[in-house]
Amino acid sequence: MVEELLRRAETYIPEDYDPNLYKIRHSAAHIMAQAVVERFPEAKPTIGPPIEDRFYYDFEMSSPPHEEDLSWIEDRMRAIIKERHRFEIREVALDEARALFADNPYKLELIEELAAQDGDTPLTVYQQGPFVDLCRGPHVPHTGYLKPNGVKLLSIAGAYWRGDAEKAQLIRIYGTAWKNRTQLQEYLDRLEQARARDHRVLGKKLELFMFSEKVGPGLPLWLPAGTTLRETLVNFLREEQLRRGYEPVITPHIGHLDLYRTSGHYPYYSESQFPPMHSHGMDGYLLKPMNCPHHIQIYAHKRRSYRELPVKLAEFGQVYRYEQTGELGGLTRVRGFTVDDAHIFCRHDQVEEEIWDSVDLALQVLGALDFKDYSVQLSLRDPSNHERYTGAVEVWEAAEDSMRKVVNKMNLDVREELGEAAFYGPKIDFMVRDALGRQWQLGTVQLDYNLPERFDLWYTGADDERHRPAMIHRAPFGSMERFIGVLIEHCAGVFPLWLAPEQVRVMSISERFADYAGDVHAGLQEEGLRTTLDVRSEKIGYKIREAELLKVPYMVVLGAREAEGKTITVRARSGENLGGMTLDSFLDSIQNDRSPIMRRDLVRVPKE
Amino acid sequence: MVEELLRRAETYIPEDYDPNLYKIRHSAAHIMAQAVVERFPEAKPTIGPPIEDRFYYDFEMSSPPHEEDLSWIEDRMRAIIKERHRFEIREVALDEARALFADNPYKLELIEELAAQDGDTPLTVYQQGPFVDLCRGPHVPHTGYLKPNGVKLLSIAGAYWRGDAEKAQLIRIYGTAWKNRTQLQEYLDRLEQARARDHRVLGKKLELFMFSEKVGPGLPLWLPAGTTLRETLVNFLREEQLRRGYEPVITPHIGHLDLYRTSGHYPYYSESQFPPMHSHGMDGYLLKPMNCPHHIQIYAHKRRSYRELPVKLAEFGQVYRYEQTGELGGLTRVRGFTVDDAHIFCRHDQVEEEIWDSVDLALQVLGALDFKDYSVQLSLRDPSNHERYTGAVEVWEAAEDSMRKVVNKMNLDVREELGEAAFYGPKIDFMVRDALGRQWQLGTVQLDYNLPERFDLWYTGADDERHRPAMIHRAPFGSMERFIGVLIEHCAGVFPLWLAPEQVRVMSISERFADYAGDVHAGLQEEGLRTTLDVRSEKIGYKIREAELLKVPYMVVLGAREAEGKTITVRARSGENLGGMTLDSFLDSIQNDRSPIMRRDLVRVPKE
Repeated sequence: MVEELLRRAETYIPEDYDPNLYKIRHSAAHIMAQAVVERFPEAKPTIGPPIEDRFYYDFEMSSPPHEEDLSWIEDRMRAIIKERHRFEIREVALDEARALFADNPYKLELIEELAAQDGDTPLTVYQQGPFVDLCRGPHVPHTGYLKPNGVKLLSIAGAYWRGDAEKAQLIRIYGTAWKNRTQLQEYLDRLEQARARDHRVLGKKLELFMFSEKVGPGLPLWLPAGTTLRETLVNFLREEQLRRGYEPVITPHIGHLDLYRTSGHYPYYSESQFPPMHSHGMDGYLLKPMNCPHHIQIYAHKRRSYRELPVKLAEFGQVYRYEQTGELGGLTRVRGFTVDDAHIFCRHDQVEEEIWDSVDLALQVLGALDFKDYSVQLSLRDPSNHERYTGAVEVWEAAEDSMRKVVNKMNLDVREELGEAAFYGPKIDFMVRDALGRQWQLGTVQLDYNLPERFDLWYTGADDERHRPAMIHRAPFGSMERFIGVLIEHCAGVFPLWLAPEQVRVMSISERFADYAGDVHAGLQEEGLRTTLDVRSEKIGYKIREAELLKVPYMVVLGAREAEGKTITVRARSGENLGGMTLDSFLDSIQNDRSPIMRRDLVRVPKE
Repeated sequence: MVEELLRRAETYIPEDYDPNLYKIRHSAAHIMAQAVVERFPEAKPTIGPPIEDRFYYDFEMSSPPHEEDLSWIEDRMRAIIKERHRFEIREVALDEARALFADNPYKLELIEELAAQDGDTPLTVYQQGPFVDLCRGPHVPHTGYLKPNGVKLLSIAGAYWRGDAEKAQLIRIYGTAWKNRTQLQEYLDRLEQARARDHRVLGKKLELFMFSEKVGPGLPLWLPAGTTLRETLVNFLREEQLRRGYEPVITPHIGHLDLYRTSGHYPYYSESQFPPMHSHGMDGYLLKPMNCPHHIQIYAHKRRSYRELPVKLAEFGQVYRYEQTGELGGLTRVRGFTVDDAHIFCRHDQVEEEIWDSVDLALQVLGALDFKDYSVQLSLRDPSNHERYTGAVEVWEAAEDSMRKVVNKMNLDVREELGEAAFYGPKIDFMVRDALGRQWQLGTVQLDYNLPERFDLWYTGADDERHRPAMIHRAPFGSMERFIGVLIEHCAGVFPLWLAPEQVRVMSISERFADYAGDVHAGLQEEGLRTTLDVRSEKIGYKIREAELLKVPYMVVLGAREAEGKTITVRARSGENLGGMTLDSFLDSIQNDRSPIMRRDLVRVPKE
């Protein structure tokens, strides 16, 4: 009988979860709950599941536990583990369950729900020592299966019963549990490393960006250092795009609703948009959720001949989407973001070359920013479900073939995903793994046969007839905000010289050398370096520490010896002392790092 | 009796209108109306006044006159002039007036209005030949006072009776009349010149910008050439600002209504704003009408010490205002525009120096763009009406003194205007006269003691106490859109080399030299010049004409002689042939024109 129950409990372990770790964490949650009610007899346990790498338990309690409560609870958990209590499973009839949890309205609510769902089927409870919990399992056989130094409480947070803001406010306690101390330590190290790289933390420390409640959630304000970083990235791509025949445009951030009715963005996506602006007797304007309709207006404002195609219109265009509040967090999900957008209007015989060039550009960008670990996803339509898509089967097959051909010829590690195409065409997405092994979707190249149709776009062919152009949407960064968020974590804020908002800090050892420091600073600035001058009457160690915290690539330290010999002493942000040198030899030594490395020879394979 | 009427009629001439020209144009309007009803007996004259440089008359008629009707009317006017009909004035009782215009409901409406207003007072009518009009005058004594070759019809347009779109649709015919043929010709030349410089016309011809009904009126879309022009101006100012210690920031285009309630922009200015976005259960967002509240959030996001002031935050920030449709026209009045905005937060003892630097920057900008004819307006409060303003009298006096001191020390031609200050502080506006003598308000420097108060801004002083900073709003261009509109007209689209969207066009005489042309083009591009390659198989004369129409500064023409000798032949857009030369000598010859001339020695007078 018990064996049957245990077997069934095992089936509740999610497929991608290590079964032992799942049971360890689930059991740790019960052990924690036992300790919590020992400390706070009035606390009412609600639910407490394992989650990725961690577990939690939500309690109704009058106020959050203090630091010393948490350490008492953690100590008590270790004691319970050492006491090797069995996790006893047993079935109870509904009425017995109701009696057992008579003083816990949350458990009672769960019991009634299960009763409504499964009728008279008995429920299971688990008990270790004096602590009984309504639970389907599974658990380890006894608390001794856990290691006292393999568990740790992590944090507390507010939560709502059943995640519903209308319902009771609970206290959630997070903890983690591993098979042994080594595993726990490894996890804590990873956590620490992630925290140190967290772009929200670094964004504050390095003064890159901020949020303001008065402006609104999810709307980043770029501080001077962040703006410099961002504009350096923008200029880098802008120049590369000019080289590839893109033409820059600038369009407004709003458009008539009618524009978006034609494009199909409204009212179809209105859930995720800021609401339209109505009044003054006007039809209404929408804050733009995408740049394409505006670029289409530019394409269509004059007659186009087949000879002038492709037309490649590029804009770093800020768009606005109304993401749900819960989804917002730092730069990776925001309500206003800048797409490094371009739309390529081309003939069908140019599609392959333009996709090639777009993929090539995306790879150049990743390479220049030292993202080495990326994969490419080719999102195709589901051929068994063609009615979901716009356009004829032959057109789709040709489009998918073009895309497949390009990625294959480029020798890219491609994963094809059926049914993942946009309704208007197939796309290529660049999935990037950052230094912590997390995967992000950044750049994208999309082929579109839909919008040219909806806006009735055309060009005059060699035959003097009207032809429909193809349209490619592409964004190598994807969104500037998300890309920078990922980039910050990828390099832990240690930006390469060419990107560093502040490249050199010039500091004087004492006020006597302030003039000489000023000269050096001016000389570096004249060479186009982003430098700051620190001639405050602070100790030099203090000045260096401050610059190191901001991860400034080079510190130039100037004292008597330097002023006399007209030299400079340079220190790298790693702490390495590069010694004394002339300004010119310093400039020579950093010359190659002042612009990104474009690996044209590596990626740009000749077309057949 | 008649003399009394004539005397009274003279008083109707506006003060700033030449009395003879006024009477000539008023009479020309009557003569035109006579000719119109002769041509179209069913046409009903309504009203026909002189306006600046011109006159018009509005008619109810079934369809607009054709080209040949207009020339018939013009010929007939000349004949009437030659016939020397007297303009007879006489008084008529209301009933006589009603009988005279019994078949003209417009005149009847006017008669009843006058009756309601002046009771039984008789009205005046003027008659030349058979044509009688209800009119208060004045007119010339007889039609022969006009010169047959001093009058001309200009255009026709639709109009509404009494300018009310709810009322009858009329046809307006515009004409002009001058004392003689020479004056008329001068006027037509001015008109032609203005038309050739009209930035709306040039904007289309040079493909700088466009409007789209689908996007919305007053919302310019910048085409590639215009974007390049605009970004070149932006980069020019950006670099100059970095040199002066400004820090770049980027902020979103929307903000919570609450932000604008605090700043006072909402609901106070809501008439001229796009309506707020409400829904999704949120308080509402406003499309930003100004950048200041966002920059204030950045200032306030951390503690500021007196040592780090001034903080100078700069952004080319696009803002949106809901100008009335009637006010829109080209780039000089739009609904979305980019302010070259910066906000300087400083200590009170820094105000003078910062105003100085702001005025200096505005003058540098005007100088670099060759606006030589500017004046400076110092807008002060009305001291007899201090309650209209924010802040204490002493603070205002000090602020006004600082501003006056700076402009005087700079030896600027300053006009002081009492009562023209903003409610939050005095300001300096730069009024620029363009090549056609028209005056525009461009740059501005404003001192503000109000917003720091409303947002409770502070810094920690040397005394460790909190102090309120002063705030300076300044924009040397004013709005990028308006500035570029004025600039286009000022230089008639002939931009200086450094600003020209396309700087050099490289063209081959025949296809045999296409390769060489490609090399030259690549060589110029490598030097950072904005060049285009034209190797189409068109006649060279055709290619040159095309480049001249786009006002491309230099055309490089390549044929056999150039390909053999590895030289280039250069032609300026003026048509001047600069002859053959090497690429290097060409580059040398244009070196100085590739960046704007900053006249630091001229304007930047040392401070005391």
